[in-house]
Formats: sequence, C-alpha cells, structure tokens
Amino acid sequence: MPSHLETEIYAQPEIIQHLLGAEADNIAAIARAVKAFDPAFVSIAARGTSDNAARYAQYALGIHVGMAVALATPSVHTLYDTSPKLSRALVIGISQSGMSMDVLRVITDARQQGALTVTITNNPDSPMAKAAHHHIALHTGEEISVAATKTYTAQLTAVAMLVAALSPNAALQHDLVALPNYIARTLEASGPVATWAANHADLASFAALGRAYNYCTAIETCLKVQELCSILGQGYSEADFLHGPIAIVNPNFPVIVFAPKGPGSSQMPIVLARLKERQAEALIITNDDALTDAPWVRLPDALPEWLSPIASIIPGQLLGMHLAVAKGKPIDKPVGLSKVTMTM
Amino acid sequence: MPSHLETEIYAQPEIIQHLLGAEADNIAAIARAVKAFDPAFVSIAARGTSDNAARYAQYALGIHVGMAVALATPSVHTLYDTSPKLSRALVIGISQSGMSMDVLRVITDARQQGALTVTITNNPDSPMAKAAHHHIALHTGEEISVAATKTYTAQLTAVAMLVAALSPNAALQHDLVALPNYIARTLEASGPVATWAANHADLASFAALGRAYNYCTAIETCLKVQELCSILGQGYSEADFLHGPIAIVNPNFPVIVFAPKGPGSSQMPIVLARLKERQAEALIITNDDALTDAPWVRLPDALPEWLSPIASIIPGQLLGMHLAVAKGKPIDKPVGLSKVTMTM
Repeated sequence: MPSHLETEIYAQPEIIQHLLGAEADNIAAIARAVKAFDPAFVSIAARGTSDNAARYAQYALGIHVGMAVALATPSVHTLYDTSPKLSRALVIGISQSGMSMDVLRVITDARQQGALTVTITNNPDSPMAKAAHHHIALHTGEEISVAATKTYTAQLTAVAMLVAALSPNAALQHDLVALPNYIARTLEASGPVATWAANHADLASFAALGRAYNYCTAIETCLKVQELCSILGQGYSEADFLHGPIAIVNPNFPVIVFAPKGPGSSQMPIVLARLKERQAEALIITNDDALTDAPWVRLPDALPEWLSPIASIIPGQLLGMHLAVAKGKPIDKPVGLSKVTMTM
Repeated sequence: MPSHLETEIYAQPEIIQHLLGAEADNIAAIARAVKAFDPAFVSIAARGTSDNAARYAQYALGIHVGMAVALATPSVHTLYDTSPKLSRALVIGISQSGMSMDVLRVITDARQQGALTVTITNNPDSPMAKAAHHHIALHTGEEISVAATKTYTAQLTAVAMLVAALSPNAALQHDLVALPNYIARTLEASGPVATWAANHADLASFAALGRAYNYCTAIETCLKVQELCSILGQGYSEADFLHGPIAIVNPNFPVIVFAPKGPGSSQMPIVLARLKERQAEALIITNDDALTDAPWVRLPDALPEWLSPIASIIPGQLLGMHLAVAKGKPIDKPVGLSKVTMTM
C-alpha cells in the first residue's frame, strides 16, 4: 500500500486542476478589491512550508504586479505586543491548517489598522479563514502526511492565480491552464530521483540552490528532506551562495540546482562552473539544454518560468520520500513532528 | 602572530565606541529626514552577512519604531529589469564594500521612483555611498579577513543608532552608551568556545537557533562557520525549527541556542525541553538564569535585549575562528572565497 505521502504527491495534478476552477471567481473578486484598495505594499505572514509560498509571492507579485512584498515578522506582534504600521498594506496570511496563532495575530492586528486582509488555508472553518476580509480555500482534501506536499503546491497555485488576476499581462491566465499537465509531466520525468536516493541512503548533508522564483524551491526541498530523513540540507539563493556558503562544497558533496529556463537561471553557468571546480555532485533540474544536456530531472520544455516552482518542487518532494524509504524512516509521521504547530 | 580575523574580532569594542561618536550627528540628521518623509514602509537590500544586519533591522525598526520592514529582492530589479513600487518607502542598502551591484541597482531604482534612500557601507567613496540621499559610514578601517566580523557588528550598530534616533523612547540612546562594554565583556566570557572547538575538530554539522532580534545571530553564526570551516550549519528561528527541522536533531547533535533575556527567549524553555528529549548537545548563550544555571557563554547581565545581537554574535564569530584553527583551515582567506562578490 502506498504511503499517504506518496498518494498526496501523485494527486497534485488533479488537485491543482480542481483548484484552478473552484477558486477562479473568488480570486477575481479579491483582485478587484485589491486594485480598489491600491496598497502601498504587501506583507505576508506564514511559517514553515507556507513561508516558502510567501517567498514565491515575493517574486511573482514583484515581477508581474510591481508590488513590494515583505515577509511579516509575527514575533513582533506576539512576543513584543506591538504592530508595525500596516494600514496601507495588503496583508496575506498563509497556513495549511488555518490554525497558526501567530499568523492569525498578524492578520487581526493588520485588519484593526485598516489593512486589506486575505488568508489562504486548507480549512474554510479555521480561525484564519474567518479572520480576514477574504479567504482563498485550497480544496486539497485532508492532508494526512505530516510533510506538506499537495497543500504547498496548492498555496503556490493560489498565489499564481492572484498574480494572474492582478497583472495587466493576460497571457498569465492562459499559462495557468496548462499547469496540471506540467506537474504531471514532471512527476513522470522524476524517475532518476528514486535511483539516486537508493544509491545515497547514507547521505549526511547536501545543499540546494535556486534563484528568484525558485529560491523557495531550494528551501522547500531542504525542509522536506529534513522533516522526512533527519538530515541537514540547506537551501540558498545562488547569489548568496557565492558570497561564502560555497565553502561547504567538498568533492562529491551533492548540490541540487533548480534552474528552469528564464532570467532566474541566467547566472547558473557561473555557479555550475564553480561547483565543477570544487568537484561537487551537481544534480540539475532544468529544461535548459544550454546548462546541461543530461539533466537529473528534465522539466517540461514549455514550462513558463513564473510557474516553474509549482512543477520543480516535485523532484524535491520525491527526494524526501525516496531518501526516507532508503533510510527506513517512517514516511507519514516523522518521529517527534506534528501536523499543526501552534507557535506563539 | 594573530590572524587578521582574530585582530578584527578583538578590535570590536573600540570600533563600536568610535562609530557611536563619529556618526551620531549624521544619523540624527537622517532620522529627521526620515520623519519628514514619513515612509509607508521600509525596504532593505543586502547580501550575505549584510543581509543579517537587515534581519536585525526588521525587528529593531518594527518593535521600536513601528515600521514594517521588507527585505528587498534585488533579482527582481537586475534579472527581470523591473522595479516594484517603492515611491513611499525608505529604502536602505547595506554592503561592507559598497560595491554590490545588485544592491546598488535597488537603491538607484528606488531613488528614481521618489523613495528616500540611505546606504550603510565601510567605504564613503564607493558607488553605493554616492548613490543614496544619505550615507552612514562604518569607520571600521579596512577589513582584511574575508569573513566579515567588525563590519557586521558595525552595521548592526549603525542600524541600532538609527532606531534610537527614530524611536520616541529616549532610553534607547542611553542603552547605546554601554554597548562597547557589553561587547568587551562578552569577548572575556567566550573562553568556553575555544575549548569546545578544540574538542570538536571533527564536527560535521550543527544548527543554531535564535528568535526575533537574534534570528540574525543564528544565521550569521552559521555563515561564519560555513565560510571558515567548510561545514554545514543552519540557522533557524526557533518558531520555524519546531515546525519540522527539529527532525534533524539526533543524539549529540550540537545546537547553539542564542537566548538573551527578553521576550525573544520566552518560548526557549519549550525548545530546550524538546532538544533534551532528542538528546541534543545544547550550547546556550544567555544571561537568563531561568534557562540554565550553566550557560556555555554568559552574556552581561544588564545587556538590553534589543542590542543583544551585537554582543551575542561574538561567540559565533569565535566559534568559526577556533573551529577553523582546530581543523587546520586557512583563517583569513578561506579557499575559493573572495572579499567582494559582484552579484548581478
């Protein structure tokens, strides 16, 4: 019998297909409200995996809508009982469960100040869903595995739908239509991940790189592997990586490079050359033949860069799963973790 | 002969003392300009170590001045040739060298839009120093070691001075006076770091935790150890850590916990209990006897929490240095790193 994790990973094309239809009208209405509010900036509150969806929003909203996006600091609200000025902001809270008390606090403080508030959760009856002016439901069904997968890609998709609804570029709506297919094809192309994991059951540490849109993919991949396999991996923007952390790369050290075609991977040839010098084991996820003719995982050729994180995380999720299998770890409930973490 | 790194670490009390005097009038004038501009929010552009100074500013400006602070995404400007709306923002660029081309681009784009711009660098003749409306010089003298230490604490101090000048709380200015002494006393209290490093020359990985003000300290400590020792350490907010990454903690895994007294460490007893369950080797940097009666490094008792990152990073810097010595690594010029990284 497959694990819940495996079932949830493979359900993603269908879930994203459903979400695109189910929330289209609601998100169009939210976009009208945002345009009417005309925010000075956006602040997004989230924790853990949801924080990586927020990182995606920084680039997607920044590049396609021209909005400056801050990642909120919930501790400022909860531990110091103060609230930065948010009255002219669009404030978005993202949480799978809708139960993150510190994220909820940011939303309620912001709403009280006059901000426009939107929450994105998988539970329309949750406190966070009820606290905001607008709520986007993820419609993934219950996520049983502790490691979030389908709710993550659904969060990214909800953000992408909002971006498409806010952007003057009508092509973005068109791009979204093919998204479930891109995810399905990436699942099909991810066979090498299982083989690699089986051969690296003794893996102790690794790094992952991604820039701009796929900075979130690098960090989320490391989070999955950490949660599922208890091994240390760190995600970096390739720009920050060259500033110092590249020092950790010794011969055969695995570095997973997320490099879908587009401006975000324009500096990757430099990074790959530096990794080669240091004899890293570079594992490249790309659809760009100029970077490598033999990628570890080949992404669909037509995948638009701005949607690429929703497909490129698939090999990252599978890496976590297959390494956990290879290491004999419990898949659906890693030791010591719980599904909902109530941070104060 | 001591390494440049060691000389620079031990020079910090004197350098901070000098900075407090040298920039007081300039920073008071900048604070008046900021108040007159009345920004809707703050955006800070930085890379590497300087990004950790930006993380400090998120909390210090958020808590004491009520400003929402975004960390800028320079790639949006440089790789996608677009600029999010920054016309109502205070935009701050931080760079040791003043030569970070992508950070410079954020400043010039923001200024063109009408934002109020401030740069913080160690070189008043650098492009970044000349690009902004206002410049804060760090006055540290040349930093020869590739791993930044004195310029980092000087960046934090420059931010703290700006916070004190903007805050209605006059006590903050008073707090700053004792800062050089707090740093000197933390240097004196850091002896256990050398002993520990000598006994852990084979260290392969570790984690560091800090929350709120000291989130930056956790990340910066890991960056120093990565740069100097080529080993992987990851810094977490303790809030995010419990969401999943705690899974990496196996028996005897070293976790460095930055917990100066104050609201930022209010949840630390929970974290320490979880670390104990997992038999971690917790190394605690604190001045709070309620957390532990035998801290690894004891911070000065009167250290105000909002200034604590400027002292608590000292054992982190020394950890990088002593581990590098124990591992026989070159101290001042780690293999493959250069002092100035020109990210595009």
